[in-house]
Amino acid sequence: MTNATAAATGASATERFQADKTHTSDTPPERVGQLAREVLEAVHDTIRKNQVSYAEYDALKAWLIRVGADGEWPLFLDVFVEHVVEEVANAGRSGSKGTIEGPFYVPGAPLSEVEATLPMRPDEKGTPMTFHGVVRAVDGTTLDGAEVDIWHCDDDGFYARFAPGIPEWNLRGRVTTGDKGQFLIRTIQPAPYQIPTDGATGALIRAANWHAWRPAHLHLKVTAPGHLPITTQLYFPGDPHNNDDIASAVKPELMLDPRSSGDGVDVEYDFVLDPA
Amino acid sequence: MTNATAAATGASATERFQADKTHTSDTPPERVGQLAREVLEAVHDTIRKNQVSYAEYDALKAWLIRVGADGEWPLFLDVFVEHVVEEVANAGRSGSKGTIEGPFYVPGAPLSEVEATLPMRPDEKGTPMTFHGVVRAVDGTTLDGAEVDIWHCDDDGFYARFAPGIPEWNLRGRVTTGDKGQFLIRTIQPAPYQIPTDGATGALIRAANWHAWRPAHLHLKVTAPGHLPITTQLYFPGDPHNNDDIASAVKPELMLDPRSSGDGVDVEYDFVLDPA
Repeated sequence: MTNATAAATGASATERFQADKTHTSDTPPERVGQLAREVLEAVHDTIRKNQVSYAEYDALKAWLIRVGADGEWPLFLDVFVEHVVEEVANAGRSGSKGTIEGPFYVPGAPLSEVEATLPMRPDEKGTPMTFHGVVRAVDGTTLDGAEVDIWHCDDDGFYARFAPGIPEWNLRGRVTTGDKGQFLIRTIQPAPYQIPTDGATGALIRAANWHAWRPAHLHLKVTAPGHLPITTQLYFPGDPHNNDDIASAVKPELMLDPRSSGDGVDVEYDFVLDPA
Repeated sequence: MTNATAAATGASATERFQADKTHTSDTPPERVGQLAREVLEAVHDTIRKNQVSYAEYDALKAWLIRVGADGEWPLFLDVFVEHVVEEVANAGRSGSKGTIEGPFYVPGAPLSEVEATLPMRPDEKGTPMTFHGVVRAVDGTTLDGAEVDIWHCDDDGFYARFAPGIPEWNLRGRVTTGDKGQFLIRTIQPAPYQIPTDGATGALIRAANWHAWRPAHLHLKVTAPGHLPITTQLYFPGDPHNNDDIASAVKPELMLDPRSSGDGVDVEYDFVLDPA
């Protein structure tokens, strides 16, 4: 940090500063100011109410620096904040429930028509799973040519692109629906996992004596022309962390009902999209 | 970010995670959890109350990343949060008022006895100023051998060590008090300045249409064996930003009363230290 730009005092510096629109957004200044003030006042209230000390303030400062140094702002925010943004964004929908996207989505996964077997290693560990369903509009019309984009972790809790040594698109794929809105995806059942605990987010969780677990889940984005896209997750009954997901992303409407099928499981889930 | 440590699921991973005390502090987990939960819930309330959108959430994420990338967590926190930490820390004192330290303190400035002329350039711009006073205990006893550590910006609003091209200890120094607790410092009068506006903190101020000004001030730390140290600032009457300091650090007790003296000004301020 330098205070280089703080140097030139007087009206000319103020004018230059206010004329520099480099980093402003389209959000009106009244709203930016209101949001910033509300959050800062809540922080002030917490400090007063809990008599926060300078040592604790210094620890907060060091931790905030570490979140950035560890590249964990997306992780931290998606785990602890996104669920409320999602709740607000989708409150008015009558179709399928959404939930948080999380930090592990990568656009552009391999695309198939109607049926897909997700890219996986020849010796991919885990219980084989067939996931199928229908995409409909809220009036019941099936949606031909809708796209189901799926990504999930492997049987060890790892995501391709975010853990080393996994093929690029492992357990990631897109499938378009057929003429009755149907799709079918062959994959393996994902495992529950702890969110990354080697950085600042894990340090907070450990210092607060929380746990870092997410219950097993599939991530999905479902889109169709003329309809609102859904970003959601689907969960498996019996997971010990369905009721205390660290990311607060589980909803009862998102629970699957797996059936045994040969050496694996079969799960069915239909998606209903609101009109755009 | 990787989710490398998230991989190994099951009890052994949980045990390893909870056994890793690398980054824990002495603060009890109940308190860390309480503070984190209160701030997160306030953020959630702000999102719900103001119907914060995904676009605004993404802008927040990008801005938090930028605060770290710009090295501005100390600046941002000291400007917008420290004043409440200071208020809590010093609420019980009966001696002189403190205020925020800010991000520009550097320990170890040159030390003099009783009288000091601060290091300055041969052509240092600004109004010459003599600053003198007495350091006392709350019972009125003068404190011999107390230390007054002073730092302030130059006539252009720049701090040595935080702006380029300024000698290392320019306008920074320490003086010990004499046998009647007295000290005298020769320097120049500091200028008001805008806090750095070229980074994330400035981007927020600009987006909210706030101003970035701090009124002119001297920074001080006053210490004496057996007494509580004071960190404070002193201000000059008539500054246009005494009433809307961006850092909320001005207090009426910290206002100087400058007198003309030759070609400069003379200011007097006595410090009263609480017992340790």
